Amino acid sequence: MSERRPRTVGLLGAGVIGGGWAARFVLNGVDVQLLGRSPGTTERVRQMLVNARRAYQRLTPVPLPAEGALTFVDSVADAVRGVELVQESVPERLGLKQQLLAAVSRVAAPETLICSSTSGLRPSLLQVEMDQPERLIVAHPFNPVYLVPLVELCAGQSTAPETLLRAAEIYRSVGMHPLVLRKEVDGFIANRLQEAVWREALWMVHDDLATVQEVDDVVRYSFGLRRAIMGPIQTYRIAIPETSARRSMERWGPALKLPWTKLIEVPELTDAFLDKLAEQSDSQAENLTIPELERKRDDCLVAVLQGLRAQGCGAGETLARWEQRLLDRGPQLINGTGPLRMPTRQIPSDWLDGSGQITESRSLQLCGIATDNLLSYIGVDGGYRSNVGSYYTVETHLSHLRDLYVGDQVQVLTQVLGADDRRLQLFHVLMRKGDEGPAATGEQMLVHVEASSGRSGPVQGKVREHLLKLARLHAELPRPDRAGASIRLG
Amino acid sequence: MSERRPRTVGLLGAGVIGGGWAARFVLNGVDVQLLGRSPGTTERVRQMLVNARRAYQRLTPVPLPAEGALTFVDSVADAVRGVELVQESVPERLGLKQQLLAAVSRVAAPETLICSSTSGLRPSLLQVEMDQPERLIVAHPFNPVYLVPLVELCAGQSTAPETLLRAAEIYRSVGMHPLVLRKEVDGFIANRLQEAVWREALWMVHDDLATVQEVDDVVRYSFGLRRAIMGPIQTYRIAIPETSARRSMERWGPALKLPWTKLIEVPELTDAFLDKLAEQSDSQAENLTIPELERKRDDCLVAVLQGLRAQGCGAGETLARWEQRLLDRGPQLINGTGPLRMPTRQIPSDWLDGSGQITESRSLQLCGIATDNLLSYIGVDGGYRSNVGSYYTVETHLSHLRDLYVGDQVQVLTQVLGADDRRLQLFHVLMRKGDEGPAATGEQMLVHVEASSGRSGPVQGKVREHLLKLARLHAELPRPDRAGASIRLG
Repeated sequence: MSERRPRTVGLLGAGVIGGGWAARFVLNGVDVQLLGRSPGTTERVRQMLVNARRAYQRLTPVPLPAEGALTFVDSVADAVRGVELVQESVPERLGLKQQLLAAVSRVAAPETLICSSTSGLRPSLLQVEMDQPERLIVAHPFNPVYLVPLVELCAGQSTAPETLLRAAEIYRSVGMHPLVLRKEVDGFIANRLQEAVWREALWMVHDDLATVQEVDDVVRYSFGLRRAIMGPIQTYRIAIPETSARRSMERWGPALKLPWTKLIEVPELTDAFLDKLAEQSDSQAENLTIPELERKRDDCLVAVLQGLRAQGCGAGETLARWEQRLLDRGPQLINGTGPLRMPTRQIPSDWLDGSGQITESRSLQLCGIATDNLLSYIGVDGGYRSNVGSYYTVETHLSHLRDLYVGDQVQVLTQVLGADDRRLQLFHVLMRKGDEGPAATGEQMLVHVEASSGRSGPVQGKVREHLLKLARLHAELPRPDRAGASIRLG
Repeated sequence: MSERRPRTVGLLGAGVIGGGWAARFVLNGVDVQLLGRSPGTTERVRQMLVNARRAYQRLTPVPLPAEGALTFVDSVADAVRGVELVQESVPERLGLKQQLLAAVSRVAAPETLICSSTSGLRPSLLQVEMDQPERLIVAHPFNPVYLVPLVELCAGQSTAPETLLRAAEIYRSVGMHPLVLRKEVDGFIANRLQEAVWREALWMVHDDLATVQEVDDVVRYSFGLRRAIMGPIQTYRIAIPETSARRSMERWGPALKLPWTKLIEVPELTDAFLDKLAEQSDSQAENLTIPELERKRDDCLVAVLQGLRAQGCGAGETLARWEQRLLDRGPQLINGTGPLRMPTRQIPSDWLDGSGQITESRSLQLCGIATDNLLSYIGVDGGYRSNVGSYYTVETHLSHLRDLYVGDQVQVLTQVLGADDRRLQLFHVLMRKGDEGPAATGEQMLVHVEASSGRSGPVQGKVREHLLKLARLHAELPRPDRAGASIRLG
């Protein structure tokens, strides 16, 4: 896979969206030149970065690249100097955006991509005053930008096709899911759908059919659960499981004509209605501040993404691909003069058990991952497993020395203590970054089991050669103190 | 918590919704009398039950109650005989429902609750022809009924308040989240919101702004991810993090007036439009059949629910409360003449690792849960932990004997091998239901650590008494063969 991660990007605007872009790029190892004029910008963006860092530490066991540098600048020229991509995220006022994008187009290098985060304005309107308008697209992200993968890409009348391709590759390189729209339309796709729900929700609160909390709860406990899995159209398709999609759509026809929605009008935001909304919204928040709500939302998004990753579904698949990219970049198994060293892993939040602890069983899981790495290093691959056999762990002796926490970076060092035709004895040491001594040690005995009989049988061919060579090498290493210990009281 | 789980319910209608109700009740230990007249009912409902059973086995580590009996009946009278609740889920035709509900009201016992699953018809219309209409409510569930927790409860003009209370308690007892609506309105709340999105989505496909797949993907990769966490109103609130909710709502005002939605009209379902929808929907499904799509959806819903449970959020909280109810019902720690026996647990799907295996580390996790149970049995509670101290595992020796799979039921038996003032040696045996020998054994050494100093120190008071008494009792049990073993090659 080609690596198109940019070295530096220029960001214009430092609100919720601009700050979110800063966090996504910086945590993916991209340098950021950020222009934000409102007071408190620096502090607010740094706080967002703290939240985003926390979310990423919980999100993935894959260690992140070294962070990019975040530089606050004072002019458009300083923001766009030497960057591959400029991302504009200033308030939704057409004149303001047109003027800024035109200014960018005069100072940026000609090959610079210029992208607007606008949530509703058409790119053809945005590019009218620009030099080289062919390099402008809309790239509309979602809050929080550092966690939600979608970015809607929309070309204007003057946009060159390669602008879309280059931008898509860059967004993909920082873990996003770019989706290219077919046509220009106000509000693009996602916001038109969101707005439709929101208007209906506002009418319900306005007419006292439901409170803010009730509307939100109805969504969260019902169809909202499905929305990350299945979009609105497939949801209806599956609800009437006719044999053909067409028949199922026909069956829904009559319901469409029912007078259920009030979407023709927008409720007037009178003082009284605003008061009602505000009061109910505050009561729903249960005294949590916006930053607290944001952290709670992020933790839940992380949990949903982790769940979807295990199922290979939607945004979970995007997460898995991003992790693979990071792994492809990082160091692989290191075999120097000492024990084998596995790539460092980060303790993710789905390793917390219900009681909020990282249990000792996760140390064993890390040993298991190290064992898998070692087996693949000596050549136990899919072909060997189905034709010859594989190793199964029959015994484990663990010493638990230090507690582990979410976000900790842990490396496993593995020594072959002994090997014969059927057995393999390993000794793992778990080192947490920054510690002097190990967090845990694990000794394991594995038995080679034949694929044909399902019983223990001799290791064969190249795997045998690689294993015995590694065992001879490791026999010269000092034997760990804890090896061969048993548990005794008194 | 009072236990209001009914013994038997009567279900009328056996489509996607009626079958889903059958699965939810049966798997929660409730007997079901099901009337469904369409051909193939029996086979279809049994297939849904198979899917639902699979989903529940993946969903929770808590063992389920013995399943209720599912009986197919041929008449309304047989369906409602002796039941506490009747749930009507026949097609959405007012006349059909009115007639059926009136018939039910003449043959059901007077105290029977009568609930309609209608997704849009007002209860006041449904109850007009009934005897004792005060016991009718709408209880509108969501597909798949056995996994999605929300049920919208709506009273009609003649409904008695206690009908709502009794029904809510019953739905809660089978793991649902009942939400009582304030007013009667066509389509209630959830479907009005869903319809709003759906109409807008249909327009986009109609106007070739996006394909079915693109509309669904935009939702799944963006705001759909948040929908289980945060409803539509709080989403907007947090997107403009003003200090007051009112100010934030005011800021959104202008966007509401933008001409983004086409919701005034419904697109005509012409032949050409239906063909387009069907073709795109089939291509989106990638040759998966509806049952395959349903299983995929269920697996993802399970993953999302498990993720939200760990965060105590929304439907995840409903899941946790349901599990607690099941645990409260089941046997607690058993201390007879043999080792301590922990309650049986089920292997849930979030114990699968990325490679689709249950790793050996989960055996250690089960040992850890058994150790926690034992500690709480001898009196190590929150007070003891903060004032005196607690036990920490320092060493573990595991023997891995059999593989475990999702849905397996496992019980842990724990023997105290020895105890002194500072140390505690345990031996766990993991038995899978139906097996002769253990799936794994685990020996553990724990050290008592003082809360004040963070160092090892003597166990005290009642905890010491309970522990030593248990140790004396267990000293008379035979010592396990594998106790005290170490790992040796040759």
